[in-house]
Amino acid sequence: MIMRRMKAEGLAHNTYFISSGGEAVVIDPRREAGDIENCMDLARGRCTKIKYILETHRNEDFTIGSVDLKKRTGAKIGHSANTPFTYGDIALKEGDSLPFGDMMLNVLETPGHTCDSLTYVLHASDGIPLAAFTGDALFIGSTGRIDLPGKDVEEKNARALYHSIHDKILPSGDHVLLYPAHGAGSVCGVGISDRDESTLGYERMTNAQLSMDEDTFVKTKLEEKFVRPTYFRKMEQYNLHGPPLLESRMKPEALSLAEFKGAVRDRPIVDTRTPPAFGGGHIPGSYSIWLEGMTLFPGWLLDYDRETLLLTDRDEDVKTADKFLARLGYDKCCGYLCGGFDVWQNAGMPIEYTHDISVEELNGRLAAGDITLTDVREPAEWERGIVPGAAMTFVGHLPQRLPDLPRNKPIATMCSVGHRGSIGASILERAGYTNVYNVLGGFKAWKNKGYAVTTPKVTAPKPEEAVT
Amino acid sequence: MIMRRMKAEGLAHNTYFISSGGEAVVIDPRREAGDIENCMDLARGRCTKIKYILETHRNEDFTIGSVDLKKRTGAKIGHSANTPFTYGDIALKEGDSLPFGDMMLNVLETPGHTCDSLTYVLHASDGIPLAAFTGDALFIGSTGRIDLPGKDVEEKNARALYHSIHDKILPSGDHVLLYPAHGAGSVCGVGISDRDESTLGYERMTNAQLSMDEDTFVKTKLEEKFVRPTYFRKMEQYNLHGPPLLESRMKPEALSLAEFKGAVRDRPIVDTRTPPAFGGGHIPGSYSIWLEGMTLFPGWLLDYDRETLLLTDRDEDVKTADKFLARLGYDKCCGYLCGGFDVWQNAGMPIEYTHDISVEELNGRLAAGDITLTDVREPAEWERGIVPGAAMTFVGHLPQRLPDLPRNKPIATMCSVGHRGSIGASILERAGYTNVYNVLGGFKAWKNKGYAVTTPKVTAPKPEEAVT
Amino acid sequence: MIMRRMKAEGLAHNTYFISSGGEAVVIDPRREAGDIENCMDLARGRCTKIKYILETHRNEDFTIGSVDLKKRTGAKIGHSANTPFTYGDIALKEGDSLPFGDMMLNVLETPGHTCDSLTYVLHASDGIPLAAFTGDALFIGSTGRIDLPGKDVEEKNARALYHSIHDKILPSGDHVLLYPAHGAGSVCGVGISDRDESTLGYERMTNAQLSMDEDTFVKTKLEEKFVRPTYFRKMEQYNLHGPPLLESRMKPEALSLAEFKGAVRDRPIVDTRTPPAFGGGHIPGSYSIWLEGMTLFPGWLLDYDRETLLLTDRDEDVKTADKFLARLGYDKCCGYLCGGFDVWQNAGMPIEYTHDISVEELNGRLAAGDITLTDVREPAEWERGIVPGAAMTFVGHLPQRLPDLPRNKPIATMCSVGHRGSIGASILERAGYTNVYNVLGGFKAWKNKGYAVTTPKVTAPKPEEAVT
Amino acid sequence: MIMRRMKAEGLAHNTYFISSGGEAVVIDPRREAGDIENCMDLARGRCTKIKYILETHRNEDFTIGSVDLKKRTGAKIGHSANTPFTYGDIALKEGDSLPFGDMMLNVLETPGHTCDSLTYVLHASDGIPLAAFTGDALFIGSTGRIDLPGKDVEEKNARALYHSIHDKILPSGDHVLLYPAHGAGSVCGVGISDRDESTLGYERMTNAQLSMDEDTFVKTKLEEKFVRPTYFRKMEQYNLHGPPLLESRMKPEALSLAEFKGAVRDRPIVDTRTPPAFGGGHIPGSYSIWLEGMTLFPGWLLDYDRETLLLTDRDEDVKTADKFLARLGYDKCCGYLCGGFDVWQNAGMPIEYTHDISVEELNGRLAAGDITLTDVREPAEWERGIVPGAAMTFVGHLPQRLPDLPRNKPIATMCSVGHRGSIGASILERAGYTNVYNVLGGFKAWKNKGYAVTTPKVTAPKPEEAVT
Repeated sequence: MIMRRMKAEGLAHNTYFISSGGEAVVIDPRREAGDIENCMDLARGRCTKIKYILETHRNEDFTIGSVDLKKRTGAKIGHSANTPFTYGDIALKEGDSLPFGDMMLNVLETPGHTCDSLTYVLHASDGIPLAAFTGDALFIGSTGRIDLPGKDVEEKNARALYHSIHDKILPSGDHVLLYPAHGAGSVCGVGISDRDESTLGYERMTNAQLSMDEDTFVKTKLEEKFVRPTYFRKMEQYNLHGPPLLESRMKPEALSLAEFKGAVRDRPIVDTRTPPAFGGGHIPGSYSIWLEGMTLFPGWLLDYDRETLLLTDRDEDVKTADKFLARLGYDKCCGYLCGGFDVWQNAGMPIEYTHDISVEELNGRLAAGDITLTDVREPAEWERGIVPGAAMTFVGHLPQRLPDLPRNKPIATMCSVGHRGSIGASILERAGYTNVYNVLGGFKAWKNKGYAVTTPKVTAPKPEEAVT
Repeated sequence: MIMRRMKAEGLAHNTYFISSGGEAVVIDPRREAGDIENCMDLARGRCTKIKYILETHRNEDFTIGSVDLKKRTGAKIGHSANTPFTYGDIALKEGDSLPFGDMMLNVLETPGHTCDSLTYVLHASDGIPLAAFTGDALFIGSTGRIDLPGKDVEEKNARALYHSIHDKILPSGDHVLLYPAHGAGSVCGVGISDRDESTLGYERMTNAQLSMDEDTFVKTKLEEKFVRPTYFRKMEQYNLHGPPLLESRMKPEALSLAEFKGAVRDRPIVDTRTPPAFGGGHIPGSYSIWLEGMTLFPGWLLDYDRETLLLTDRDEDVKTADKFLARLGYDKCCGYLCGGFDVWQNAGMPIEYTHDISVEELNGRLAAGDITLTDVREPAEWERGIVPGAAMTFVGHLPQRLPDLPRNKPIATMCSVGHRGSIGASILERAGYTNVYNVLGGFKAWKNKGYAVTTPKVTAPKPEEAVT
Repeated sequence: MIMRRMKAEGLAHNTYFISSGGEAVVIDPRREAGDIENCMDLARGRCTKIKYILETHRNEDFTIGSVDLKKRTGAKIGHSANTPFTYGDIALKEGDSLPFGDMMLNVLETPGHTCDSLTYVLHASDGIPLAAFTGDALFIGSTGRIDLPGKDVEEKNARALYHSIHDKILPSGDHVLLYPAHGAGSVCGVGISDRDESTLGYERMTNAQLSMDEDTFVKTKLEEKFVRPTYFRKMEQYNLHGPPLLESRMKPEALSLAEFKGAVRDRPIVDTRTPPAFGGGHIPGSYSIWLEGMTLFPGWLLDYDRETLLLTDRDEDVKTADKFLARLGYDKCCGYLCGGFDVWQNAGMPIEYTHDISVEELNGRLAAGDITLTDVREPAEWERGIVPGAAMTFVGHLPQRLPDLPRNKPIATMCSVGHRGSIGASILERAGYTNVYNVLGGFKAWKNKGYAVTTPKVTAPKPEEAVT
Repeated sequence: MIMRRMKAEGLAHNTYFISSGGEAVVIDPRREAGDIENCMDLARGRCTKIKYILETHRNEDFTIGSVDLKKRTGAKIGHSANTPFTYGDIALKEGDSLPFGDMMLNVLETPGHTCDSLTYVLHASDGIPLAAFTGDALFIGSTGRIDLPGKDVEEKNARALYHSIHDKILPSGDHVLLYPAHGAGSVCGVGISDRDESTLGYERMTNAQLSMDEDTFVKTKLEEKFVRPTYFRKMEQYNLHGPPLLESRMKPEALSLAEFKGAVRDRPIVDTRTPPAFGGGHIPGSYSIWLEGMTLFPGWLLDYDRETLLLTDRDEDVKTADKFLARLGYDKCCGYLCGGFDVWQNAGMPIEYTHDISVEELNGRLAAGDITLTDVREPAEWERGIVPGAAMTFVGHLPQRLPDLPRNKPIATMCSVGHRGSIGASILERAGYTNVYNVLGGFKAWKNKGYAVTTPKVTAPKPEEAVT
């Protein structure tokens, strides 16, 4: 038997490939050429057939690759019978068994994160569980968020999750290997460990959320503060009805300056260079989303129906950026400026700057009262401390909250290190703000310098934001 | 027979590998792990022995790889009998023949660029010339510079070059393939074509310098304005006595912030990020040399005896930067800040900025008289036009010319596109200038915008600069 | 300007990519994913558009990739107006000009190899020719075969070729670079040099066929003895009407032994292992075609309409073998035995052997009279010597000539080194011969041992074979 | 925290890299350029320092890479205080703790496989064990062999191992991840699972050896029948005093036929082609060791002090073969025949054949009594069945047992599939046997065909063989 975890940078998602005796199972493949190819290669390299493609639940944070992988392999797609998926082959329920080679996967219904969450328990013919693929129910060091299905069912979901974990998953045994769908950095849980290895027993002993009684657990889960990316709606749709095949996506074309200038008229530009590079000079009106940030933030800013242009640090970054867009279901990245910003600047085209600012300077200017500071991190981060006097607006909510932000004096955006701050600054500039600063190093640098921090009372984002 | 040209980015240098019947010759290998490995691989892949390593002359612009390649292969090193090389095996003179496989290389003495320049003419047993490896004598679209051996012998060299080309090289025949040591972008000639393919006949018909009579040619060559990098002295030494083996070089270590901060006390930092990224925020006191610029500009700024630190955009760039340093004979790049500028900024360390400025803004500020402009390009570029009122100081001469540059108002540096401008700006900042601007797009953008241009009378750089 | 030659292993074909000022031309692309991708990458890497895809003539020995490349780029396909191509965009005639960037290609009609052969002459705006892309008219060290259009027009073609070379191509000038469509090893010419570099002048002086007068040239060309692969018919069809897109090809599936056994019932197996490996044990009834031989010999043995199976030395060889099949227009390679011959033998399946024999043993057995020898090389090779007493049947004609080959005693096949001999042996075994030997080292080893050689009078292959 | 398992093909060994908070630990690195580089890259890629290099015991089956890795990193080498290692830095005993980043490794003394075997238990600051690195004490599905320290202490070792597992390792808890030094295919245990994932609890429940009482366990371990490769002596020496640095090894040179013929006079040739290829023709006197078999079998056949030559299927296999030799401590592979067997055969050099035979033919010839069969597998394999009448001599013992093998009639060698059989056949041929057969498919094919099998009483190899 072999087992492979295929991690997605940025998204912190795990696809699992398990093979035994010439047959294989893939769990939660991503709609991403590399992920699909890896599965194919693992199968081919072992003279193995992929028999099942299994989903742990209807994912919200990325587009599922089941449809693409099925087309390539002829495997059957299995998912929960509790959701009206329209593209699968097997509707799974508690107690179902999926044999492959000398191994078997047993299905547990483990709702809470979503109502259709399944856990797959792997065992050999002796029936002794070896591993549990828990999807977004149980993470290493955390548990899945419970707010996605809606405000009104949050408590119900939290209770369901408690019972899924304590009555279904943990009883499989301390010795069982834990293979969740996400690792540290995922938007599907708070405080997920940066470690990939664990067991149910190790979690039982060390995962703080597992030693709570039901009511404490529920209270804790209800207090977790999440933002809900607007693109989740699209993911839910795609992951219910099946996304278009990867081969149907536009391919970003290498554009000359003339072509790019023509295209830019009615298409947004996403600039994936680093924040200091963006700050030092960019095409007026561009969004700043650093390369790794492309795994998530386009979901807050881009329309699905509108073509998008890229401006990258190096031409080869286009491939990476577009891979991330594919995961999010964006299929209309139509081109990039071949040769990058140099081509733009060397032609004497207009250039816009974002002022970069160190925390030391920020500290001085805040004291002098000549700058406004907006913290664009998430509520869960604010709770752990902010710069005194900073306004709090999550970067994804900035476009809607512009009326709240003063235009009469310089304004600085701050996040944890300066990446999301640069997104925020670019949103402000697009909206006509002219004296915008991004704090390099962000709150992390602020704390490292030992400057004053205050702990605000953070209220959950407004319902309309949570549910969008 | 196979022939391979191995081009060096930035340096625009060509190493040639020619094999025939189980034996091979390498012409002008570079001291660069990749170049040496390529030669080894070409030989191994054809079950071929490298028999000769030949040098066209004592190179000044890069470190020769003959010693390393000889150690790996046991091949004999051949070079001119006219120079007291101390590491070679065969002292070559006019008329010598070097047989390998079914082919032969005949030696022509073709002085002018240097007094020891050789041309190797390739032919089969029928004696009909097939190709000429002309080193720095004849380029595609140009000829070699004649200023390097010294002011006093420039005219003598120009005449020698004229005769080398017309009496030695061209008589080999129109049909002969031309394989020079450099392509477009080299510091060893002006106006070299960006094309790699030519023949002696095509040059005879199209290369403007070849249709001049001797006196016009000499006059033209004497009027060519070159700068002479300070590192050429080191190259000459190395290429006379043989450089240290590559394996003796320091390897740049991945340093933590604490280690980097410790090391930085008495070591210069070279920041290889793009100019806008450098402008948007950098470690105070760093030199800005963009990655490709590392093929040349360290030679103007760094001491050979002093350890150097790198700050790169991506950690993998360290390998590229250090490869370029090896070519220039720099062996003491001791480390880099692992994780790059993010690590610096996130710790709340002090940050310095270079203002980036577009040509549009520059135009406005020059008109308003509130900025000084220094053009840091080369004399040969100034001759073709500058911004009215700009001071002219080549970037490599800036450190010595600081007293000429005013400190009392904002100062902008301009090059052709903004790369060397960023080097210049960083030199000024290191010298304590505080209000420094780099013109993004440089003179190219200025011209593209149609702004006013003037054509200055450019005098050659002062002798002490030319000869250093 | 950049120029790249992309060579095809085995086929000895050159695709050329030339770019200038943001526009590029591709000459004779192959229907091969790698070749198409290389063109795309070269273009993208230089921010260049492919403007023209040009064909030198209707190729017979490989499938053209113009249709695929056009689909990816939108470039225009240009070819001779003398042939009723049904998929192109521009019908070219003598004197036409194709500008791209700062360069231009001028069209010369240079018939002889085919009636539609064109030569493209490259020059800059000064009109001075730099290079000639001569297709199959003029090779380095040879000229194109003239037998393909049919027995009745051979002399006419030879004369046409003479005039194309002497009246059209050579007049471009000695200094002109020569870029032909094929190198050594191609079936489109005899005695092509193994060198890639030449000029028209160097050929004029060294290419024996160019110093002949017209009648000697014609006589020489008429005496060249070629075989005409049966698959050329298919190539002509494809290259006239455009082949199916690469994406429509079957992909070879990794098959389990059970699947492979099922598939093998009515599908031929091609075993691409080395001759000694094939000799040491193979699946009864397989064809032996060594991996590199897949570039040509499937064309003699496989039906286009029938699915084929592969048995390779290493699973990764499947990709290489199928790439070669694509070039030949074979689109129905449906699968391979995953895990290779080990899987077959370890299951206890029947095994067939070809006896391998050294020339030393062959010599002894021929002397003893207990073995028959068939030389399966080509007529042009027989002319230069054979083993006394050997029958001569080209390997591609063996299936039709079986009635001529004795079954009553051991029979050995011999080629130049043992590769085609193994193909021949496998053909005999498929036909029921049971005591078959392949001569390892072939005629080369025989000569190296100094054994007796005789020079037979070789008649051209029968017309029906030549024209098929 | 990250954890990486780096598996060695063939050897089935695991190197572990664990990092936390900027510091890393490597457990049991191999003396193999790739393994060392992987560790360096993992460290560099995470801006991490390797702090400790830990050994679980003095390994016998491969050469340790600690010395090389220390030279590259400056890390400290830790190993058992119970063995007089002469190259390490830290002598470890029960209860020692090795902190790195936020994690800690605790040392358990777990003798049995060797007297110096250690288990490292990984935990965070909470002290709850997360994983156990058990070396050769506890494998997945098996336990370590106990015969290596000598016949006289076997029982003592078996008892020690029982207590190490039950009193030391398992008490860490069911939930603890199990990371042993070897996987399926290792010579250090029988019946190791082909799976890489397990926990102490899963082993407790499913590993048959763990549910035995002490006496049954001891009896079982004493009955395990192992062969003891002669090269283990060298490994013990190297792993006690530290092997020479990798950089001091000879590099295999690409040799021409003439050079190879010169070298072959007093150097053995190892032919790494597949058994059918070797059978179909080889250089007289070569050893046949298939490529993957180079991970182990040179240890039985080659002298450490004598230079060796390679003959490979493809030139690039040389790198792989030499990597495997480095692991075994062989540093004198001086060259290979560039171009492979083709070069040999095409020169008309003498060729030797091994007859390959299918089990079907074998069955017939055994019935006819005209062939002798020698089973060259290991005792542990014979116990599970042999062909009736087969002699049993392990392939590694063949050179010493030749007097027992009849020369008067054809002789066949058989292993499980035909790989070791080919080694055996080549040993016989070197010894002058002239009518040697290798059974393709081996015992596996025999059983698959349903032929008769008998179960012999196998006695342990003679002490002198076991202890060598």
